[in-house]
Amino acid sequence: MVWTGVGRPHEIVAVPGVVLAPGETLVAIELATVCGSDVHTVEGRRPAPAPLVLGHEYVGRVIDVSDGVRAVDGAPVHVGDRVVWSIMAGCRDCDRCRRGLPQKCRSLLKYGHERIQVHWELTGGFATHAHLRPGTAIVRIGEALRAEVAAPAACGGATAWAALERAEDIVDLDGATMLVLGAGLIGLTACAMATDRGATVVVADPDPSRRALAVRFGAAQVADPTDARGLTAALAATGRPEYDVGLEASGSPRAVRSAIDAVGVGGVVLLVGSVFPTEPLQLDPERLVRGLVTIRGVHNYAPRDLDGAIRWLCEHAGERPFEELVSARYPLTQIDQALAAAASGAAVRVGVDPRDAQRRR
Amino acid sequence: MVWTGVGRPHEIVAVPGVVLAPGETLVAIELATVCGSDVHTVEGRRPAPAPLVLGHEYVGRVIDVSDGVRAVDGAPVHVGDRVVWSIMAGCRDCDRCRRGLPQKCRSLLKYGHERIQVHWELTGGFATHAHLRPGTAIVRIGEALRAEVAAPAACGGATAWAALERAEDIVDLDGATMLVLGAGLIGLTACAMATDRGATVVVADPDPSRRALAVRFGAAQVADPTDARGLTAALAATGRPEYDVGLEASGSPRAVRSAIDAVGVGGVVLLVGSVFPTEPLQLDPERLVRGLVTIRGVHNYAPRDLDGAIRWLCEHAGERPFEELVSARYPLTQIDQALAAAASGAAVRVGVDPRDAQRRR
Repeated sequence: MVWTGVGRPHEIVAVPGVVLAPGETLVAIELATVCGSDVHTVEGRRPAPAPLVLGHEYVGRVIDVSDGVRAVDGAPVHVGDRVVWSIMAGCRDCDRCRRGLPQKCRSLLKYGHERIQVHWELTGGFATHAHLRPGTAIVRIGEALRAEVAAPAACGGATAWAALERAEDIVDLDGATMLVLGAGLIGLTACAMATDRGATVVVADPDPSRRALAVRFGAAQVADPTDARGLTAALAATGRPEYDVGLEASGSPRAVRSAIDAVGVGGVVLLVGSVFPTEPLQLDPERLVRGLVTIRGVHNYAPRDLDGAIRWLCEHAGERPFEELVSARYPLTQIDQALAAAASGAAVRVGVDPRDAQRRR
Repeated sequence: MVWTGVGRPHEIVAVPGVVLAPGETLVAIELATVCGSDVHTVEGRRPAPAPLVLGHEYVGRVIDVSDGVRAVDGAPVHVGDRVVWSIMAGCRDCDRCRRGLPQKCRSLLKYGHERIQVHWELTGGFATHAHLRPGTAIVRIGEALRAEVAAPAACGGATAWAALERAEDIVDLDGATMLVLGAGLIGLTACAMATDRGATVVVADPDPSRRALAVRFGAAQVADPTDARGLTAALAATGRPEYDVGLEASGSPRAVRSAIDAVGVGGVVLLVGSVFPTEPLQLDPERLVRGLVTIRGVHNYAPRDLDGAIRWLCEHAGERPFEELVSARYPLTQIDQALAAAASGAAVRVGVDPRDAQRRR
């Protein structure tokens, strides 16, 4: 399903014959989910090179693969493997790939973000099939993990894992007190993962139904961020002296401000949600210095983060209601309705199911 | 020498008998140096609880010590040991001390910053003797390290080491490109230490004589930060693609801005100099997120940082002109002149020598 610009319906494009080059893989998509950034694109808040195939959260089954393609764990990828793959493909050779930042590769390709090209049309998740390029991180997931749980891991889940890993470069989450702002997929997933690592987590979201969900994902306390004293009261209710970590997963400038103001001495603020232009933030350098505060931007993730997130989900997803996060589901041919449903915000994730289209092909 | 307030000369106070409590140490000071923050205090830009003894960069010799006092390396402290000690004493028991942040201890004492008290008068470095409280990090330095090199390690040198350690939580300095803003004691020391760790260092300072000094401390390139294209040109001259680390050691809001703007993807900005109130900084959260930028405030240090800095200086100080940094020296009784000289900025550090006063005692 090809998106051609703001306000236009998707168009069906047939891609009759895919020829794999060395290092490439062809996947039949089982389920894709709609990320907030897909909604930003169709609503015109994020520039995108149309025509393109949106969608970068997905799970599928390998139906063709070139010789020598290997998964993140080093094992060969075979036809029949059920897989999740990274949002991006890096060259593995430039200075940034060599520094462990493949998501900022000098010749980066991002699924769901690239104009369709001759010989590379199947570039996103809202399609029956995906054509994976060399340098894509492929994780084999086995048969047990539910598709609704696996698909969002390719973006939101792996980003949540990456944010916690970037925090643990600096603080030990075991025993830490963490504030999560925004109970979307990233916030809820990070809440569950951080709780499992031994953190006491407070989740703030203006939506009472999201706060209720956060409790089921392990939040020790929840707070309404529109209540000026909510974050302080929630901290007091935990009995902990200060917030050690603040994870901002909404992108709201007000939440960014709250995260920075909320953390205590030695605190770490992870900025994850600010992936669209906003008003600037006013910061007091002296407060950062005297408070030993760290602010880290986290965008996408490295292959090891996707692998870590999937391994964690395989082991722990059953302990939390992850499968409920995809609470609406549309066939691929109704992608415009799926995107409108995602924009309404009622579901944490909207699923896009291509299997009907695969059968009719 | 007791400071009683802005615009007043120091007063001589005699402390005839010091009785050590358990865990305490008495040191005869060999040399103290004037830190920028002492100048901030006497000029009224930093509140301080007068009357107090200023000075928190020092080296001296133990002349009395309670049973069981141990140095950072675990060895007992003996009368006759030549030592440097930390700017602060922590309780070692509160939540912050237990989290490795003794410089933010809930019952922190800071040498050179506390009102003089009955039974604890010798609280700072501008004195013949210092009375060290329990929880002070004491580092034995042997006889070889020159006093002019050892004294500034207690504040600036250990802070420079701490900043590099906080950077290495995130990036490997070996092979990194680092921008240092401000060629004062911290900037020059960090330049030498980072060069030794394998970094390519660019130092920016508006003063040409400081830039010349930076080259002698290992800077690969130097730049005038008042030249809008200076930092970019200096980076180009190194042949490196981007700045991986920016260390801001001047406190100037403009330099803070430059450090954040200068670092590339995955860059780490260390804020060290902003220890006085300034205008706020405008930050774009999206740039931090998409650029994977980290901003860390660094204030003071932990005992292991003082130990690391001293060990490094013992091994490497001779390779750089550290002893030239103390280019003016005053007897203790001329402390007001020493502070005025420090305020002029002509010397990187002004020394305060108490030995004349010790002999006359």
